[in-house]
Amino acid sequence: MEKSKIGEFHFVTESYLLDFQGKITIPMIGTYLLHAASIHAAERGFGYNEMNNDHRAWVLSRLAIEITRYPGMWENITLYTWIEDAAWLVTNRCFELVDSKGETFGYARSMWAAIDLNTRRPTPLDVEGLNVYKCDRSCPIEKPGKIGPAEKSPALDTFTVKYSDLDVNGHLNSIKYMEHLLDMFDIDQFTRKEITRFEISYISEGKYGMDLALHKEQVLADQYNMAICHNDKAICRAAVNWR
Amino acid sequence: MEKSKIGEFHFVTESYLLDFQGKITIPMIGTYLLHAASIHAAERGFGYNEMNNDHRAWVLSRLAIEITRYPGMWENITLYTWIEDAAWLVTNRCFELVDSKGETFGYARSMWAAIDLNTRRPTPLDVEGLNVYKCDRSCPIEKPGKIGPAEKSPALDTFTVKYSDLDVNGHLNSIKYMEHLLDMFDIDQFTRKEITRFEISYISEGKYGMDLALHKEQVLADQYNMAICHNDKAICRAAVNWR
Repeated sequence: MEKSKIGEFHFVTESYLLDFQGKITIPMIGTYLLHAASIHAAERGFGYNEMNNDHRAWVLSRLAIEITRYPGMWENITLYTWIEDAAWLVTNRCFELVDSKGETFGYARSMWAAIDLNTRRPTPLDVEGLNVYKCDRSCPIEKPGKIGPAEKSPALDTFTVKYSDLDVNGHLNSIKYMEHLLDMFDIDQFTRKEITRFEISYISEGKYGMDLALHKEQVLADQYNMAICHNDKAICRAAVNWR
Repeated sequence: MEKSKIGEFHFVTESYLLDFQGKITIPMIGTYLLHAASIHAAERGFGYNEMNNDHRAWVLSRLAIEITRYPGMWENITLYTWIEDAAWLVTNRCFELVDSKGETFGYARSMWAAIDLNTRRPTPLDVEGLNVYKCDRSCPIEKPGKIGPAEKSPALDTFTVKYSDLDVNGHLNSIKYMEHLLDMFDIDQFTRKEITRFEISYISEGKYGMDLALHKEQVLADQYNMAICHNDKAICRAAVNWR
């Protein structure tokens, strides 16, 4: 039973998606996590199709990723995912990232809600059904929490949501948020430092044609808060720690 | 021997990378092609590492993709790739995309050059070595060719090359060119039509911080030429046919 609770997924890092230093990126890791989460849920009867038949969809609410080593070209990655718990409106899903030597190089935690496709509002979860798969495997990183409002700082850049930014629900893709946020950092930052923790909180949905503003505020020597705003209201906040 | 000439790769479409209509996109297909090309070359002794040891790198020069049906969520895709021929400075690589029913839904053709990492100039290929893997499997689509200069039309948009746009060589990622180009089309175009052929010609390398301008020109009812320019010079041209 423990086995069936934990999903195991295998990836080979795509050389054409590596960053300029030949390392995998936070958005790439995000793609792996979301891919594994989708399949893990679908294989246990609460995936996209089942939700869609019920006029509902899973929405990623918060995500925290901690990485101790960034794999390079064509490395084999094993990704484990499991459900930590489910409550009335939110379920927590954890991840562990392991390299080809069997060494863990990262963990992630995510919080998900199920929205009604018409009202776009959260709906009660099937707590009992989800908790059948509840697993007490350890995920030793801090839960995603409240992120300070970086939108008090002036906007560094703006962008308009375009075709390539959209996901299957017609909203700004969860991964594209990450790309736009990280693009606020100068290339030197990526040369000198490495991201140890990336945390994101999705507040409301970015839509096609929306003009969005990007904000960044330094809170400690190696810690930044960020926000993506529409009409001065944050639709997303994020926090990044560097080493 | 024929078997070892043809590389076979398997993908499952990532739900989080599908477009707003739940279909795979040209940039996603591009990622699959480049991933397969990299591994196919590496497994036959002329991959990134071998080239890098020789202070050289493969550079994608031209690519044409023709698609008759766009797979949706979690479809299994089999991708075949093989070398059509190799000449002094250029080698041609072909691709065939097959769905889970064994039906071909697309073909692609690519042209590659090997540049010297210092001079960034093309270097002579190991024609004999490459032609050991030459394969006469059929790839029934037109070769990528000359594309008219869309930069005569006024720029529709501009963008600056950022961290997430870069590839492992520190230049504008081949896939990101495609995203920026397709984003020139209005969302309605993707709702009403489907891309039957996408062709791209990479002329020179986009670098970090470069300000680039996007141009589009309609040449026939369902055919467009596009260009990405730096200081009014095209660094890339593309052509798209819709149905």
